[in-house]
Amino acid sequence: MERNIVIAVDAMGGDNAPYEIVKGAAEAVKLYPVKVLLVGQEAIVKKELSAYTYDEDSIEVVNADEVISTEEVPTEAVRKKRNSSMMVGLGLVKEKKAMAFISAGSTGALFVGGTITVGRIKGIERPALGTCLPTLNGYTLLLDSGANADCKPQYLVQFAKMGSVYAETVLGMKNPTVGLANIGVEKEKGNMLVKEVYELLENAEGINFIGNAEMVDIPFGVSNVVVCDGFVGNTILKTLEGQSKALLKRIKSEITKGPYKIAAAALKTPFDNIKKSYDSDQIGGAPYIGFKALVMKVHGSCKAPAIVNCIKQSIDFIENGTVEKIEKLIQE
Amino acid sequence: MERNIVIAVDAMGGDNAPYEIVKGAAEAVKLYPVKVLLVGQEAIVKKELSAYTYDEDSIEVVNADEVISTEEVPTEAVRKKRNSSMMVGLGLVKEKKAMAFISAGSTGALFVGGTITVGRIKGIERPALGTCLPTLNGYTLLLDSGANADCKPQYLVQFAKMGSVYAETVLGMKNPTVGLANIGVEKEKGNMLVKEVYELLENAEGINFIGNAEMVDIPFGVSNVVVCDGFVGNTILKTLEGQSKALLKRIKSEITKGPYKIAAAALKTPFDNIKKSYDSDQIGGAPYIGFKALVMKVHGSCKAPAIVNCIKQSIDFIENGTVEKIEKLIQE
Repeated sequence: MERNIVIAVDAMGGDNAPYEIVKGAAEAVKLYPVKVLLVGQEAIVKKELSAYTYDEDSIEVVNADEVISTEEVPTEAVRKKRNSSMMVGLGLVKEKKAMAFISAGSTGALFVGGTITVGRIKGIERPALGTCLPTLNGYTLLLDSGANADCKPQYLVQFAKMGSVYAETVLGMKNPTVGLANIGVEKEKGNMLVKEVYELLENAEGINFIGNAEMVDIPFGVSNVVVCDGFVGNTILKTLEGQSKALLKRIKSEITKGPYKIAAAALKTPFDNIKKSYDSDQIGGAPYIGFKALVMKVHGSCKAPAIVNCIKQSIDFIENGTVEKIEKLIQE
Repeated sequence: MERNIVIAVDAMGGDNAPYEIVKGAAEAVKLYPVKVLLVGQEAIVKKELSAYTYDEDSIEVVNADEVISTEEVPTEAVRKKRNSSMMVGLGLVKEKKAMAFISAGSTGALFVGGTITVGRIKGIERPALGTCLPTLNGYTLLLDSGANADCKPQYLVQFAKMGSVYAETVLGMKNPTVGLANIGVEKEKGNMLVKEVYELLENAEGINFIGNAEMVDIPFGVSNVVVCDGFVGNTILKTLEGQSKALLKRIKSEITKGPYKIAAAALKTPFDNIKKSYDSDQIGGAPYIGFKALVMKVHGSCKAPAIVNCIKQSIDFIENGTVEKIEKLIQE
């Protein structure tokens, strides 16, 4: 198997590192023609790796002594811990020794580190965090889902373009529809920001803008891509997550009471299927879109399947020339 | 029964008007010592009323020939339809012939109409729409849930004060906790607006501020009151609603398949209980807080129980001197 695609993975990031990360990498190299650079404390990572069999040329361990924790202030952590698994991994991308970087570590540090190390695509003002939301008819790519809490109108236009390219090249959506997250469907609805953005999106080239995406319709899959500022995007993301958890908890407590216990037990399989469809490990990671190479954030509590999925998405991102297509569309 | 409290109700607003509105009013006057002024097309309303028996002095019909529809632009509708049920009803409050006004009609027209007719409490910059969200441990009052899409920091401080008073006087919460809706729990998280608001709330008198309320925790009941701008509030509200509907739809489709049908049928009662706990009719209405009298918006699809609950809440609002308490707290 020729392994021309090289992806760096932060072996130390996340609650289940390095065990689940290393396990995911070892699985991925069996499935895909990819070489993985596992970045982290060499002795620990090598010990984890020894549990698996894999092509010798498919995994390489790159040493990094430090680890950035999620409690650290991103700007400080990135500056002080140059020898952390995250900064070393991003450095491999900068030096073109890797084509993408995947980490389940600090979201903020990854964004700051990506900005100063990998750098933005020419013309991109702000990279955005994209999240694949499970909906009733598939997935919706929501961006920005948390990287930029304050946005200017033109940022959102760029998010729409970047999101369209990503949805097409990585998620396999043809001519993806783009909706503007808003509190009403009519053009004149919303705050000052979205009113301005609406006008700009109507006149933007190369995207399939379908108007406002009402929040209530997002879980039903109102459009392939939904754009918004990072504060609103994170609000949508976390509200969805919170309500799913709360509602499933309430359902569990109601249906496992006294007389209903037996019927509830009989429904274990469908409930497990539902939970699985909302499981972020199945989705993979959340890409920072707008850097010169893919920087992918994985949920802190991720397990091996998430890493496998992230590696698959990274391969699609690289093979389909996503960065070049974004650069071209932004300059139109 | 002495009926010193007089409440005006828009008999023509909402999808189920006048039938459900009139029914609710007829039920409420049996339960509470209140007089209801039913505002709408006299002949139609009187015909509906003829189906019920009630104290003669408990319901009066006030004629209003026009109806404002939800499709109309609020500012125009309010200006042109002075003789609509909504504007006549708000006029009764202005003339002190009624102490509160309840309508299931256009949300926007009710806000504009309330502003120009009833007017704001002295010192209040923007009245807010409050919504009672069902949570795992009761209710949370979310405001602003949609009236003001663009907010200045001081508006949110006023929302916190108004929300605290409302939660205590109408919802019966003692020394209610107030959280600031944010995308992280730490003080430094969020956009420019919420960072400024955080500082102001820390130093605000007369409220029990507990810091940031993370969106993911809102459905679990993180605080009694949650404050935010109207765009974010409406985003939270509609995302919660959309996710509940989507998740329940997915569950229904999974558990009513082939072998699971019988077990699912056995769980009808607990599922009905869950749906009921999220039913807006049980909650009543969403108050516009900050006007010189209570102006209450009811869901457009509301039925009689919602009207009964709104009338009950209006009585509590009036009897507990909510407006006077807000005015006092704002001036502190």
